[in-house]
This record gives sequence, C-alpha cells and structure tokens, in this order.
Amino acid sequence: MSKLVYLQDRFVNTDKANISILDLSVQRAYAVFDFLRLIGNHPLHLDDHLNRFFYSAEQMRLPVPKSREEIKQIIHELIWENDIPASGIRIQLTGGNFSDGNEFFNPLLFISQAPFPAPSRDHFENGIRLASYEYQRQLPHVKSTDYLMSIWLQPYLSERSADELLYHVGGMITESPRSNFFILSQEGKLVTPATGILKGITRMKVLQLASEVYTIEERALSIEEAIGAKEAFITSTTKQILPVTQIDNRKIGNGSPGPVTTELARRLNDMVNRTI
Amino acid sequence: MSKLVYLQDRFVNTDKANISILDLSVQRAYAVFDFLRLIGNHPLHLDDHLNRFFYSAEQMRLPVPKSREEIKQIIHELIWENDIPASGIRIQLTGGNFSDGNEFFNPLLFISQAPFPAPSRDHFENGIRLASYEYQRQLPHVKSTDYLMSIWLQPYLSERSADELLYHVGGMITESPRSNFFILSQEGKLVTPATGILKGITRMKVLQLASEVYTIEERALSIEEAIGAKEAFITSTTKQILPVTQIDNRKIGNGSPGPVTTELARRLNDMVNRTI
Repeated sequence: MSKLVYLQDRFVNTDKANISILDLSVQRAYAVFDFLRLIGNHPLHLDDHLNRFFYSAEQMRLPVPKSREEIKQIIHELIWENDIPASGIRIQLTGGNFSDGNEFFNPLLFISQAPFPAPSRDHFENGIRLASYEYQRQLPHVKSTDYLMSIWLQPYLSERSADELLYHVGGMITESPRSNFFILSQEGKLVTPATGILKGITRMKVLQLASEVYTIEERALSIEEAIGAKEAFITSTTKQILPVTQIDNRKIGNGSPGPVTTELARRLNDMVNRTI
Repeated sequence: MSKLVYLQDRFVNTDKANISILDLSVQRAYAVFDFLRLIGNHPLHLDDHLNRFFYSAEQMRLPVPKSREEIKQIIHELIWENDIPASGIRIQLTGGNFSDGNEFFNPLLFISQAPFPAPSRDHFENGIRLASYEYQRQLPHVKSTDYLMSIWLQPYLSERSADELLYHVGGMITESPRSNFFILSQEGKLVTPATGILKGITRMKVLQLASEVYTIEERALSIEEAIGAKEAFITSTTKQILPVTQIDNRKIGNGSPGPVTTELARRLNDMVNRTI
C-alpha cells in the first residue's frame, strides 16, 4: 500500500512523490539528507539527527525551508498517518530547481518513510567481512546524497566475497560508506578514526556508552593495526553494531565476533530500549 | 513557453517532467549524462556525444533503454517540436528507482532541451581567471552528475575574484569542473593533461585541429608550468575555447589572450561552421 510522503508543503502518496528533472539533486547531485529509525513508532535520537541535518544543510549553504519544530510536526504526522512501526524516516533537502548561476538555491524538502530492513541475524552472529578501498568521500562531514562510489563498487565487493567496503587514504582507515569503524586495540582501548568521516549518531552513542568502561581514542588508525586488533565492528543507524571478523580476507582475532563487541551491542540495545 | 522533454517513452512539457524521489539520482547521486550544442537546429558532434554517453552508461553498469538510432530520432523530434535553434540538448540516464540491494538498476532516460547561453564576449576578449583547488573528481572518465564540489566551491571562486576552478592533485593539473585545460608551452608545444580528466569532445576537436600545426603533448602538467606558459585556454561544449589569462592571480604571458589561442578559436569556429 502506498504511504504518504511530505513534499514541499504537501502530503502526497509515494507514487505521486515526484520532483522536476531540473532539480539540482537530479542534475548536479547537490543534496543532503538524514535518516533515522523508528522503533514502535518512536523516532530514535530525533534531535541528534535533526542537529546533523541542519548542520549538513548549512555546510551546503541550503536554507532549510521549515523550522526544527515544523519538521518534527511533519514527522509525527507521517508516523501517525503511515503507521509503519518498524521503519526509517528520510529527511532530504535538495538545491531545488537548477539555474545556471548555481549561486542561488531554491531548496526543496521532502520527508519519506519506508519499512526498515531488520539487521541480519547472521551478520550479527558471525560478523561481516570488509574489503578495503582507497577513497576519500568529498565533504565527508556532510551527509550528502553522494554514494556514487559505493554503488559503483558493488562488483568489487562481490568479487572479494565481502559484505561492505572499508575506505582508507594511504592505508589509514576513514569509514565504511554508511558506517563508522571501531577496533578494540591490543591494549584494550576502543579506537575509531577521527577525521575524513561522517560523524554517525550511533558512533556518538557508542562512544558515550563505552566511555563508562573503556579508554576511547579518536585518532588515525591503519588497516594493519585494525587487522591486528582484538576485535573490530562497525556502527550505523541501520546496522547498530555489527562485528567485523575479516578485512581483505584476513581474520581479526580468532575470526569470530568478540566479547566486547557483543557486550557493547547489548548495552546499545538496552539504551535504545530505555529511550523509547 | 514550456518546451517538450522526452521522459521514459513519452514527450511531456518541461513543467510536467518529474521523476520519483526514489530515483537513484535523487537518493544516491547515481546518474550519467551528456550535453551537446545545437547550431541552427543542427546537433553538433552528435555521434561523438553519443559515443561518450554510451561509454559513461556502460562504465556505471547502466543499460541504456534505447538504441543509438532511437535516441537520435528522439533528439530530432525534440528539435522539430521545440524549435530552439540556439540551444543545448541534455541526455541523462539515472539508476532508476531505488531498491536496497543497489545491484540491479531500472534505468530512467530523459532528454531535454534548453536555450543555450551564448559564451561571454568579455570572457573571450579579455580571458578568464582560474583559481586552483586540490581535488580529484571521482570516476573522472565518466560524465556523471556529480558536480557537488564545483557548486560548493562557488564562494571560494568569488572570494578570489576568479571565474572558474582549476582542479589539481599535488600541484599537477587535471581539469576545470566542466572544461579541459591547455597551455602553449615556452617551447611552442600544445600541452594538455592526459589523466584524471573527462575527455571533452571540444578537447578532442581542438587536438585534431591543432595537430596540423603544433606538436601536441598529452602529459602531466604542473600549475607552475602553466603559469610560466606562453598562453593557456580551456575548452568545453558550452565555452568552446576561452583564453585563460590568470591562475591564482598570477598572469600568464602578458595577461592578455594569446595569438595562438585566438587563432585556434577561429579555426574551431570555422570547423563548426563547416560541420553544420
């Protein structure tokens, strides 16, 4: 059944949620978005996601045509009307209709909701395999719609029987296309790259949680150090915490999800359940 | 007056040329295009542009839903119906509606026409100023819709009173966002970067023309060598040949358009007039 989408001051059915081919997202890939999870119709970390959405928009010089409170109201209306308890909400702002000067934007806002893919049980229990690839996302601190490379690299992943990419610059890890990367170092510290990344909301929550127990280091991290780590995992809104058991077909630890990763995943889950 | 656009098997008015917010161009910036000029309703270098369009699509694993002959037929219908003699034609192919796997595409094709901005007389007569910026376009050999950085950098240009960007990697020039870069070296050779670039159709035509008279070198070219050159210019479908008289506020030669640049522009213009 078609669900409602908020699109420029109106609620329309998904199959009528269309924008002009002249929109800057279509013509020039100029757009930002954010994506948040609903649990039991409760939007998770809504304020954190809105903070980042407004930050991304400001970095791209796109004025947001609605206030934070208006966006919250729209989201609550969508949740009420669509009634998809296990779902995700996408808030997107594009440059609007293309004019040649490129200096003035006429931003277009849409907010859509879709069922949320449950994280794979298999991935959580057995861990995932990453394949490294040298690439730096442009404007990494901004959540733009630029996922060209991650889509283009799907065959690269398949050829390597890997589940996800791990971007690096000169052997120094940045992030996965839609996730942040962590290790538990041989010294028992939780290490995650600090620069060249999008600062994930789940990354932030994990850092908050973990800081009660572990020493945290946000710093440069090489692929070699990661492969030699005790444990590794990625974090994202859709994946929460997923253990990483291989990088470039080399095992991390004994090649199984580690106890600290599993414990952090449990604590994150508890925190989410307390939030809603 | 609204003009016709070809959009997925139909001709529609521009103001009805809409695509889903779920399209991969909107959600994931996954799309290719090409752009060609019309002179007196004649599409210039149509076969060259179609060659590149099909190449870009193949590189992005996007099957083109129409044959080359069908696309030509659509373009001729648009030209006939719209009757905008001095215009540009955009042929764009997107990944189509988004599905989470990302591995299968359902490409969407549109072909649109719009009046063509006449190249600035002032720019041609006085030359343009470039501002260098370190950046490598992703998949540079593919004409994707990714112009995020060039739009984002508009204030960088304004602050430097520059007309256009000049991308480089570690001081070695690649290209401008929508143009190729050439110099006339102190040895009187025509030099243009060979790698990390989109191979422009106008670049190809200029190389063909110039090879009758000049020694051509397609090779690595530093910003320093460019600033020390006798002359410099950029080429593109919209700009044809424009003299470059400054890079980073440093004059090239005496700071005026050079005689070889002017002569090549004249020859290119003659060639275009012979073509139509």
